[in-house]
Amino acid sequence: MTDQPILVNGTWQAAQNPAGSFKATNPATKEPLPHSFPVSSWDDLQAMLDAAQAAVIELRQTPRSAIADFLDKYAAAIEARKDALVEISNLETGLPAGTRLPGELGRTTNQLQQAAQAVRSGTWLTATIDTAANIRAMYGPLNGPVIVFGPNNFPLAFNGVSGGDMAAAIAAGNPVIAKAHPSHPRTTQLLAEAALEAIEASGVPQAMVQMFYHTSNENGVKLVSHPITGATGFTGSRVGGMALKSAADAAGKPIYLEMSSINPIVILPGTLQERLDDVAQELFASCTLGAGQFCTNPGLVLMLDTAETQPFIHQVETLFEGSDPGLLLNEGGIGSLQRGIQTWEQNGATRVTGGQPMASGGFRFQNTLYTVDGATFLQNAESLQVEAFGAASLIVIASGLSQLIACLDALEGNLTGSIYSANNGADDALYTDVAKVLRSGVGRLLNDKMPTGVAVSSAMMHGGPYPATGHPGFTSVGIPASIHRFAMWQSYDNVRQHRLPPELQDKNPTGSMWRFIDKEWSQADLN
Amino acid sequence: MTDQPILVNGTWQAAQNPAGSFKATNPATKEPLPHSFPVSSWDDLQAMLDAAQAAVIELRQTPRSAIADFLDKYAAAIEARKDALVEISNLETGLPAGTRLPGELGRTTNQLQQAAQAVRSGTWLTATIDTAANIRAMYGPLNGPVIVFGPNNFPLAFNGVSGGDMAAAIAAGNPVIAKAHPSHPRTTQLLAEAALEAIEASGVPQAMVQMFYHTSNENGVKLVSHPITGATGFTGSRVGGMALKSAADAAGKPIYLEMSSINPIVILPGTLQERLDDVAQELFASCTLGAGQFCTNPGLVLMLDTAETQPFIHQVETLFEGSDPGLLLNEGGIGSLQRGIQTWEQNGATRVTGGQPMASGGFRFQNTLYTVDGATFLQNAESLQVEAFGAASLIVIASGLSQLIACLDALEGNLTGSIYSANNGADDALYTDVAKVLRSGVGRLLNDKMPTGVAVSSAMMHGGPYPATGHPGFTSVGIPASIHRFAMWQSYDNVRQHRLPPELQDKNPTGSMWRFIDKEWSQADLN
Repeated sequence: MTDQPILVNGTWQAAQNPAGSFKATNPATKEPLPHSFPVSSWDDLQAMLDAAQAAVIELRQTPRSAIADFLDKYAAAIEARKDALVEISNLETGLPAGTRLPGELGRTTNQLQQAAQAVRSGTWLTATIDTAANIRAMYGPLNGPVIVFGPNNFPLAFNGVSGGDMAAAIAAGNPVIAKAHPSHPRTTQLLAEAALEAIEASGVPQAMVQMFYHTSNENGVKLVSHPITGATGFTGSRVGGMALKSAADAAGKPIYLEMSSINPIVILPGTLQERLDDVAQELFASCTLGAGQFCTNPGLVLMLDTAETQPFIHQVETLFEGSDPGLLLNEGGIGSLQRGIQTWEQNGATRVTGGQPMASGGFRFQNTLYTVDGATFLQNAESLQVEAFGAASLIVIASGLSQLIACLDALEGNLTGSIYSANNGADDALYTDVAKVLRSGVGRLLNDKMPTGVAVSSAMMHGGPYPATGHPGFTSVGIPASIHRFAMWQSYDNVRQHRLPPELQDKNPTGSMWRFIDKEWSQADLN
Repeated sequence: MTDQPILVNGTWQAAQNPAGSFKATNPATKEPLPHSFPVSSWDDLQAMLDAAQAAVIELRQTPRSAIADFLDKYAAAIEARKDALVEISNLETGLPAGTRLPGELGRTTNQLQQAAQAVRSGTWLTATIDTAANIRAMYGPLNGPVIVFGPNNFPLAFNGVSGGDMAAAIAAGNPVIAKAHPSHPRTTQLLAEAALEAIEASGVPQAMVQMFYHTSNENGVKLVSHPITGATGFTGSRVGGMALKSAADAAGKPIYLEMSSINPIVILPGTLQERLDDVAQELFASCTLGAGQFCTNPGLVLMLDTAETQPFIHQVETLFEGSDPGLLLNEGGIGSLQRGIQTWEQNGATRVTGGQPMASGGFRFQNTLYTVDGATFLQNAESLQVEAFGAASLIVIASGLSQLIACLDALEGNLTGSIYSANNGADDALYTDVAKVLRSGVGRLLNDKMPTGVAVSSAMMHGGPYPATGHPGFTSVGIPASIHRFAMWQSYDNVRQHRLPPELQDKNPTGSMWRFIDKEWSQADLN
């Protein structure tokens, strides 16, 4: 059987000298799916880099409207393939076809449309004019393509070829080279077909989006550090991310990583006096959403030891045990959960429920809950922060406030941190002490809310201190902030008016774009 | 003789177990200056980190107005020491006491005042509100101190303890640990005295600014990658910068580097037909400013081979030869120039004038001009881009436009790129082709202007693609952009109104701060 083609410079073509081939597995049946996909050799990647380099030059002449058109038409082309995308991504990932995958598809097209809108508005460019000095600046594209590595857990909304990193990189005016996740190659292929349709309909360069399915770690490292490469976006494991980061950093190439996060949830005692059942239900729902395979899954819960603590844990246990475990994305998920839980056990955590793979029904693992006391957590804080990616959470029971604070101080950087507190104000003093510490360790601080919903909002921070990501100043979700990652800050000093980009000329080119003129935001023309 | 004290946690104290001591050298006499300074062991740096960590916590409660007060009072305290600072920095650096050093001092106090103004206005925070989702975000401080390494060539405006990186890090709400440049320790000490006076007068933590003079490379690497450290700002050599970058990157600590840049100047032929003498004069003035020891010094000039080319070179030669070379900052500058020029010669460049150290008058080197043809440049492009830091420039003479473009394409990333063109429009077609290529390789594009003036402007980009810096999205000069380097993007999701920072509450806390509300900039309260 011939391998499926890759997308190079606007053409579907056979991989050159592939290093092998692979098939995706249906996690519900553990059986391989029919299509075979190539593992690309460097030849493919070099061809994509060369085409992307030509696209970078072509993009210097491409009107911004064509890029916005591409993003909108891509969203429409995905919407037109909705049924097929839901069906195929369900087969490849086991994620539910009823609401989850259609919902994720809507998020994907919404992101692309928001990116298009940002390109049309131009406000993201941060066009800045210093009239006295006659210096003007704005964001411009990088001088090379953006490489995007998507994760396994969001086959549409974070896919390398259609997700938030891709949308941001394109909005900034860069071509994208996307690597499919090998868990869902056919889904990615279908998305790339939609992208190609949009490329052809909008007048952007043929190499605006290119796609391959798989390659060696060695080639991945070579790709992110290649002289032609502009920057990289990566969502995935800490081990994989750090290997790429090391190579990209050494070559002076920006790389944005979203890696591990255990998303601490602090439940203050007054909450449980008011609404124990509700919070238990919320925690259960968030922990088991998507079989727990969310980067914002609540992997760590921190509580004080009060009269309500054990009843709360018992309530969560009941909910965990009363619910069938969801499908994991692939076999690797089982091993990863087992290793994580084993590490917890070796470091003093006690099983409440779960801890084992399911014997039947595809790749499934019991909903799992562990507890540990605060003193033990502090002794083994590093090991007990290992991420068990799935529906597995560890509850830390602190003896008092100072131990709770010490536990929070011992946490590595996380994407999110949530605090539940009483509505009647009973926890307000505790809240202040806890929030002060948690705030600086997480990208997004929540009140009375689980972190698994990541809105595509201008105020979203889906990022955080290392090792949640590689840099605390950036977010991978939310427009315009996510676009700035893939842009270069460019000054024009004394450049003659007619040679300036339209956005920096005296006249506001849209009449409504916000510009930062003499340190004030304005939509006006310059006089 | 006892070594001079270092500044730790608000106290001048003796270095603990110093690894040695050193004296600065007067470059005009080549004689050592009287004071002796310690080379800090790790003990000093650990003490500073510990104090800074406590300051980070204290800063969570410090009002923003105290930080603004500190910056303003620091500017005033520097101004009050103006005569002594000019005198001492002149002795240590050889930079002219008449206009250069007083001018640099004014730039330094202006930067601090602009930073104070940014803190008071709050607009730099980019307070962002999504009313529908009730998610709000803004920049917050890092969770650790910022380490600042200043360069040798700007003892005041880029000093680790008083320069742009320091001002930006403080404005973002972080404490700073500053390393003096060992070429001007006494200047740095005097600045740190001014900083301490301002600390005591403004109510910021005692460890807001700490300072040491020197340490081993090994300790530097340990400092930038230490768990307590928040981020690092470095201005200096490529070798030193890359060693720090490697360590910081591996630890997931942001680091901002300003390293080598040769700042290409393209002179299009029509310019010389119109104003040969003027451009020669401008080039000469920019090349020799500060004895050429500017990061934006024009180290590379690119021209087409026309009738005016040799007359222009001859005119520049005349000016170079007719001017006494300025003082270099230290003996290292001579060796560095010799090595750079030797590399040029070995790779086919021809001497027009200069090339040798001066026999007398302190550390001085002849004003130096070399030429090379475009074909030879293309053959040895990497070697011929070596930075000869000082008043030494290489002129590339291209046979035609395509060769000129190829030369520009062969350039590494630079801070600046300038294009001189005829006022009568004769060069406009050439300009378009040249600017297209140059734009993406430099941070700041200039017209008809030499790059050595770096205005402290909101539209400044003093940065650029690697290896000019480590990341093309950031600038080390210009407010507010430079502040964002030392800040973390922080979301508040569903956080109760009274718990939000004032800047994110419904009411605009200043009445004039710009906030990004539902994707539009606004100064209004939320209803």
